[in-house]
Amino acid sequence: MTATLANALFDPRRIALIGASTDAARLTARAQVYLRRHGFTGDLFPVNPRAETVLGERAYASLRDVPGDIDFAYILLNTQHVEAAIQDCAARRIPVACVLADGFAETGPDGVARQQRIVDTARAGGVRLLGPNSMGIINIPAHTACSVNAVLESGTLLAGRWSLVSHSGSVMGTLASRAAARGCGFAKIVGTGNEADLTAGEIADLLVDDPDTDAILLFLETIRRPDLFEHAARRAHAAGKPIVAYKLGRSEAAARLATTHTGALAGSDAAADAFFRAIGIVRVDQLETLLEIPPLLLGTRPPVRPKRAVRIVTTTGGGGAMVVDRLGIAGIATAHMLDTTLAGASKEFVSQALNEARDADDADLAIAVIGSSAQFRPQEGVAGVIAATGRNPICAFLVPQAEAALRLLAEAGIAAFRTPEACADAVRAYLDWQTPRGEPAAIDVSAAAALLDQAQDEPGARAVFAALGLPNGAVRIDPEAPPPLAYPVALKAVSATIAHKTEAGAVALGIPDAAALRQAAAAMQARLGAQITGFIAQPMAKGVGEAILGYRRDPLVGPIVALGAGGVLAEIYRDVVLRLAPVTEAEARAMIDQVKGLAPARGYRGMPKGDLAALARAVVGFSHLAALACVTEAEVNPLIVLADGQGVVMADALLACD
Amino acid sequence: MTATLANALFDPRRIALIGASTDAARLTARAQVYLRRHGFTGDLFPVNPRAETVLGERAYASLRDVPGDIDFAYILLNTQHVEAAIQDCAARRIPVACVLADGFAETGPDGVARQQRIVDTARAGGVRLLGPNSMGIINIPAHTACSVNAVLESGTLLAGRWSLVSHSGSVMGTLASRAAARGCGFAKIVGTGNEADLTAGEIADLLVDDPDTDAILLFLETIRRPDLFEHAARRAHAAGKPIVAYKLGRSEAAARLATTHTGALAGSDAAADAFFRAIGIVRVDQLETLLEIPPLLLGTRPPVRPKRAVRIVTTTGGGGAMVVDRLGIAGIATAHMLDTTLAGASKEFVSQALNEARDADDADLAIAVIGSSAQFRPQEGVAGVIAATGRNPICAFLVPQAEAALRLLAEAGIAAFRTPEACADAVRAYLDWQTPRGEPAAIDVSAAAALLDQAQDEPGARAVFAALGLPNGAVRIDPEAPPPLAYPVALKAVSATIAHKTEAGAVALGIPDAAALRQAAAAMQARLGAQITGFIAQPMAKGVGEAILGYRRDPLVGPIVALGAGGVLAEIYRDVVLRLAPVTEAEARAMIDQVKGLAPARGYRGMPKGDLAALARAVVGFSHLAALACVTEAEVNPLIVLADGQGVVMADALLACD
Repeated sequence: MTATLANALFDPRRIALIGASTDAARLTARAQVYLRRHGFTGDLFPVNPRAETVLGERAYASLRDVPGDIDFAYILLNTQHVEAAIQDCAARRIPVACVLADGFAETGPDGVARQQRIVDTARAGGVRLLGPNSMGIINIPAHTACSVNAVLESGTLLAGRWSLVSHSGSVMGTLASRAAARGCGFAKIVGTGNEADLTAGEIADLLVDDPDTDAILLFLETIRRPDLFEHAARRAHAAGKPIVAYKLGRSEAAARLATTHTGALAGSDAAADAFFRAIGIVRVDQLETLLEIPPLLLGTRPPVRPKRAVRIVTTTGGGGAMVVDRLGIAGIATAHMLDTTLAGASKEFVSQALNEARDADDADLAIAVIGSSAQFRPQEGVAGVIAATGRNPICAFLVPQAEAALRLLAEAGIAAFRTPEACADAVRAYLDWQTPRGEPAAIDVSAAAALLDQAQDEPGARAVFAALGLPNGAVRIDPEAPPPLAYPVALKAVSATIAHKTEAGAVALGIPDAAALRQAAAAMQARLGAQITGFIAQPMAKGVGEAILGYRRDPLVGPIVALGAGGVLAEIYRDVVLRLAPVTEAEARAMIDQVKGLAPARGYRGMPKGDLAALARAVVGFSHLAALACVTEAEVNPLIVLADGQGVVMADALLACD
Repeated sequence: MTATLANALFDPRRIALIGASTDAARLTARAQVYLRRHGFTGDLFPVNPRAETVLGERAYASLRDVPGDIDFAYILLNTQHVEAAIQDCAARRIPVACVLADGFAETGPDGVARQQRIVDTARAGGVRLLGPNSMGIINIPAHTACSVNAVLESGTLLAGRWSLVSHSGSVMGTLASRAAARGCGFAKIVGTGNEADLTAGEIADLLVDDPDTDAILLFLETIRRPDLFEHAARRAHAAGKPIVAYKLGRSEAAARLATTHTGALAGSDAAADAFFRAIGIVRVDQLETLLEIPPLLLGTRPPVRPKRAVRIVTTTGGGGAMVVDRLGIAGIATAHMLDTTLAGASKEFVSQALNEARDADDADLAIAVIGSSAQFRPQEGVAGVIAATGRNPICAFLVPQAEAALRLLAEAGIAAFRTPEACADAVRAYLDWQTPRGEPAAIDVSAAAALLDQAQDEPGARAVFAALGLPNGAVRIDPEAPPPLAYPVALKAVSATIAHKTEAGAVALGIPDAAALRQAAAAMQARLGAQITGFIAQPMAKGVGEAILGYRRDPLVGPIVALGAGGVLAEIYRDVVLRLAPVTEAEARAMIDQVKGLAPARGYRGMPKGDLAALARAVVGFSHLAALACVTEAEVNPLIVLADGQGVVMADALLACD
């Protein structure tokens, strides 16, 4: 079935164009025009009830009239006619139908329902759906330009060994035109639109098996079906095919826009970042990096314990300085820069210098910065770069306008950058590249699961977290007959209805003895009455630091664990680190290292160290909430980090279930 | 004299090429080759003692032999022969000598001395010096290509109405080639190299008066002579000529590199940022923004109270979303985005939509995002953009590869961007653009100045700051006979030698009464002995926030005042805002608003507000240190911000003088 799907989607031989226009100037005529113009070698079946012929080809009044099997139907009709067309496709058992029209999930509840209906119809009929809101697919080596994208106006598209999957139809052409200007071409280009059925992740997975595809590029407005992405990413890693993503929605405004634009839910961009990193997809920040980075990743692997340092060989001091500057902003050091301005830029000298740079132990990769020779003597300018060999990867930044040199480097399979910004972005992305996480081991959360139905209040949440390995610290007490406690203690009223306990007067701190405890509890009871269902007490703890531990099921990427510094300043600085849950202890330790506000607990300026081992264990245990499907959100705030060897203590706990 | 200098520098009619090579392939032959190739219409005098002719022109054995006045001498000799050549230029009273050789201040102490010698020689002889390490000057409209830059290999350079001043010689060609690819040309291009004498600021000042120059672009590796920059920027503002700067050294690594590369001191990049902003120079972050932003600034003025919002009219949803995303990261809102994909991109429709966008009250400017039409029907694609009129500025982002459309927009004087990153960078830079600060008013600091010679210890520093208007809060006491104090108090030993007083046991907090004060002082005296020169006492203050107030004379840009949040977390988050000193009360208030860690004192989440008016007055007073030339550094850390209406209190104070 997968082989059939890939064939039908990427290399259809018999294509129906449902709603093909007889007016060559119209958008709905373009697929036919472009297929013919770009040399489609299979059969085309324009479907149009009001014409005998369409653009000189025999037309069919209905899909029923088309003879023989059909691989791919491109539905070019208006929104309101799409559903009937899908029914027709189902009747003909067409394996893939692509829908051009918009007006579905991105328009609101009615559109969502409309989209769901076409998905249901397609599924019932065994039809896989591309779109709606899809500009189709282009298979350049096969000369199959089954798309309405205007980039097909140009004479020929450059064929290459990368494939592109794009949510946005117009961006398909943008990237193809920009890549062509660098001498880079594509194998397949697929526009996924609203992804009602076929998602970018599933298509990437098909491309892992495509013999014409070496690298997979993604232009994403959101993330749907993270499971399929992860599956694809694991298989791509095994196959040595890098996946690179440019994803919109980094700013909150843009995330909201994506929500309205394609009907997707908005998740946190930091969660998306954690997602891509965990599954081994390289995320780039700048648009052109997407097109420029693939050769840097091809034939290599995610760097192991990178030094985050480069060596630079430059024929221009100013050009080299631009790259050093940008890398420095990204926290990447320049271990060494050799300026060959005076030594000249002979092929032998440059390649010798780059050989050394590629084999240096103090750097992860070598960057060649090429000045005016790239513009005026391109062959000569890039010869030394192409000749260089060594253990570490190499890439190049071309300082002047230098199209010919870009093309020569592209042909030689060397990543070449037009701007210092894209160069530094690519180096950063390469150094952040990770091997996909393993399949999460089975975690036994049965003890925690058994406690979930009593987790609405704080003691219930604490009990669940304690079952996951976090020290509880608090005990339910009867204030009239308290057990022996390590005074002074904090007293809290238990309530499933009071949201802000401190403000409500449901918390009393520093209670010195049993008498005071009784008194404080009585006062709370008098004040809050029936809202209170009990009391908990906990010894006052003075930590060396405070953390926030969070968990949530992100609407886009799923279970996420978050660690931040505690207190109001950390909140103001948004100092929080996210990972896909569950995490290993090594990942938890890496998270702790990345929270700036935990620097005091790490021993900043001789401050007393906190029990970071216990904190790491708490992060791991908390991340196991991922195995409890009904948990939507959980938080320990603050989690008090005691001095080294003394553990951590939950000062407050909260858990929400579906 | 200035007119003469400008003529001799930008438009020399009689040029001596000292050390012109007879070998056309050599770097030192290039100036002559390029001057001739690009149609220089004046007189050339190659000086070469070993040749009768150089490249077919009569050569002179020595500068003495050249007949008549000489406007400009380009010294192409090796480093060790430069000094003698400058002497020759001085003897001939040549107004400008340009030195190609490197090997001066950038190489270390010997080079610094060598550079100083040529400056002294030039000055004594009335010669202004360009370089050393200068690639010369190119006056494109006048066909004067007096430079060895390889960009002159190409047939013709595009003439335009912007001028470029670059520290880096190679970058002159880089920017010229990249601008040409967009249809943008230059009037003058000047390479300033080490700026031993003529600096970028002074040359920018000359360009303000150049009738061929509408905008001034700067590529800077450092800042020398900030006073000349400021003078130029004020005059440029008055003349309506924007100045745009791209400056390296944003990362610490790059700042160090700049130090070794051109012999410049490294200053703080944040200080450079504050400098450019205060004097009205637009600083861009990305290289290509430098070339793409000028039309957005030309004919307009720094925005007054910008809303930091744009309106977008796009012919492609995906392309528009890229810009929204980038703007959002920069903190700029998209007030409204109109996607015309379905409505079509007719000239009338687009220009109508853009007219509305340009006149909207909810945005500062309009952005046109142009999709595939920019590539395939460029005239049509940009027609609506060019036709649009309105109050607010307009710029365009071209989504596909679209050189022709870039050129059409350049011709129409509309800023057009190749990448969403440069587009957002330019919009951010435009919104940050400010009118140059006024000439600082004379400030009477005589009271503070009179106290400077006793400011080595804390009470001395406090006295100076108090004379500038900061509440002192502490008094010198005799612990045996203390004056009436508002107990509890803090006691500190006075010492000019103890750096870390708390660690040394020279501070005691929360002293309840006179007896305890006496006891604490005696204990300090016993422990620290002769290091102590007295005691100060101060009532214990509980503020609603803590700030750090700093002052320093930045090695590049001069007096700087800094305000940050106090405490260890603020230090970890590097949450500090800088301004050129002195500042006005309005500027001080803006600084307070920008320090994230002062959010609690601003009343974050209902927290008690601090006395921000008093804090602003303290910042203003502290910034008046700028009028005390000998003060190199000063700090109040922490400055305790009391509750609203109760002022601020210095908890520690430090001042360093030359």
